[in-house]
Amino acid sequence: MFQERKTSTPLEKLGEFGIIKYLTQDINYHQFSSIIGIGDDAAVLDFKENKILVSTDLLIEGIHFNLAYTPLKHLGYKAVVVNISDIYAMNAKPTQITISIAVSNKFSLESLNEFYVGIKMACKHYKIDLIGGDTSSSNFGMIISMTAIGSAYQKDIVLRKGAAPNDLLVVSGDLGAAYLGLQILKREYEVFKTNPHIQPEYGGYEYVIQRQLKPEAPNKILSIFNTVDVKPSSMIDISDGLASEVLQICDMNNLGCRLFEGKLPIDPQTQLACEDLQLNPSIAVLSGGEDYELLFSISLKDYEKIKYQDYFSVIGYMTYLEEGAKIITKEGQLVSITAQGWDAFLKHA
Amino acid sequence: MFQERKTSTPLEKLGEFGIIKYLTQDINYHQFSSIIGIGDDAAVLDFKENKILVSTDLLIEGIHFNLAYTPLKHLGYKAVVVNISDIYAMNAKPTQITISIAVSNKFSLESLNEFYVGIKMACKHYKIDLIGGDTSSSNFGMIISMTAIGSAYQKDIVLRKGAAPNDLLVVSGDLGAAYLGLQILKREYEVFKTNPHIQPEYGGYEYVIQRQLKPEAPNKILSIFNTVDVKPSSMIDISDGLASEVLQICDMNNLGCRLFEGKLPIDPQTQLACEDLQLNPSIAVLSGGEDYELLFSISLKDYEKIKYQDYFSVIGYMTYLEEGAKIITKEGQLVSITAQGWDAFLKHA
Repeated sequence: MFQERKTSTPLEKLGEFGIIKYLTQDINYHQFSSIIGIGDDAAVLDFKENKILVSTDLLIEGIHFNLAYTPLKHLGYKAVVVNISDIYAMNAKPTQITISIAVSNKFSLESLNEFYVGIKMACKHYKIDLIGGDTSSSNFGMIISMTAIGSAYQKDIVLRKGAAPNDLLVVSGDLGAAYLGLQILKREYEVFKTNPHIQPEYGGYEYVIQRQLKPEAPNKILSIFNTVDVKPSSMIDISDGLASEVLQICDMNNLGCRLFEGKLPIDPQTQLACEDLQLNPSIAVLSGGEDYELLFSISLKDYEKIKYQDYFSVIGYMTYLEEGAKIITKEGQLVSITAQGWDAFLKHA
Repeated sequence: MFQERKTSTPLEKLGEFGIIKYLTQDINYHQFSSIIGIGDDAAVLDFKENKILVSTDLLIEGIHFNLAYTPLKHLGYKAVVVNISDIYAMNAKPTQITISIAVSNKFSLESLNEFYVGIKMACKHYKIDLIGGDTSSSNFGMIISMTAIGSAYQKDIVLRKGAAPNDLLVVSGDLGAAYLGLQILKREYEVFKTNPHIQPEYGGYEYVIQRQLKPEAPNKILSIFNTVDVKPSSMIDISDGLASEVLQICDMNNLGCRLFEGKLPIDPQTQLACEDLQLNPSIAVLSGGEDYELLFSISLKDYEKIKYQDYFSVIGYMTYLEEGAKIITKEGQLVSITAQGWDAFLKHA
């Protein structure tokens, strides 16, 4: 897992334009809408009659990632996923991305290239075009800024606003795994720091670690919507933890909600890691974050269409504002959902 | 010039969503193409049949700016200008911008708001819509990442590629002023550090300091092109110093060029500051940067159309590749242009 170093070319040898040329020499474009990509003052795109979606994200070393246990190739891949997930969350297709990075001069060209290999892998996988960026030196750590662009027909776009009382709340995939993956990586890194000869133990935790280091964007969900002919009434990307996203949906729609703790989708490996680390799985789901799944609401009448979709879990429903945003615990208690999730839960759990 | 502090609200009091709500509460939109702005996973735009331009920039404390002598309001304004200049450099109109920032917890809400006041001033002045962004904490300094979006008819877009031998090289405005402004600010800051009771002396340097702290984007140049009915054969934003941009144009077109040192447009105040600081004005122009003017090439036949435009200076012409990229000094010497500009010039000057 930990980074290997081979040859090491100092960045100052190439200069900014040399670095960009080197890193982007083998970039292929997948989208008809990419008219001009990297190499001019701006990229040029053409979306014909479609609407255009734009979303931007910032990843900062020490805040969002730790290079001690994050291989650069994975980080590049994840950066793309983090950013395009926001476009999928509008029920739209991401088509282009720009990536700006700042690194200290201690970075070699080879390690920067590792990062770009990951970016290009993700671009290939999701058929996204890398159309621009900016590189800079940094006095501190590594900084990554990305902007994703996508397109959709007006009629398909799903906003955070649009949910109605009694709409069902549904999530894709399973939740909490990425957070547990991070806890396992942190634990093994602490062991490694104490004694670098001890090999990290990841056996049995491959899935949660993969969810942390190499998450995937919720692209298949859009094709499920298409297949079952459902358009959600509202939708949001799960990046900050389920609690935060549920509260956003409530807030945008002036509604309350009821979640069922027993309905939260948790992978057995996440469950196991929680036992190992003595964490409450529901708290990991509510407050962990980095799931890159989707939370959406659908009209009750659409329930029949999605009920056999293994990939979807109905976790609750929308209520009127007065009823508040609450979760019904496995023991039947009614607990308020807070942005952190932790406090309220800890008091009652 | 130096920052005043009034009330000071810690950022952690509001949380990320609270901060965004506070900072963006009074944002107005100017563009018909902005369908949905801040507040969802992505913004939604509609450009009808027009082409879309995208450009992105990163500004990092300690590398691109120093908060010791950069008021936050000016920094916000400048961030917008830096980013939209790239869109103007395509002969296109910027229409939207996203701004992501990371700051340490030492920043107060009030100082962050100062930064946003500057952003909003620039958005109002240039009729740009702020449609998104990301805020994050930072363990180090302040980080600003911006993506500008613009639109244009296909027929109007001017790329870096397109120049032919004998095309004239033209620049807008005057060059080198922002670099001298920075040198004056640095000098006064050194004095201030030694003795905080000495007031900084900016008398006579208002213009160069303004060019550094509150530059303007080259929007009026597009209307001049329109008025005189000229479409440049190639164009680039002057942000890294004239030498670097000239070499980019040569490189993209597989051509050489000749510049005339005596034709470089330099403001009298820049000239004066150079004497004061014992700097070579031509070096400031070639290597200083942050001018946010445009360098473009036009066909010889268009010369008559622009020759009475005070705002334009013909500084040279394109040649075949074999002739190299060179500048003819005031003394008649032929000197190679290098990306830094400094070295070659210092050897000969």
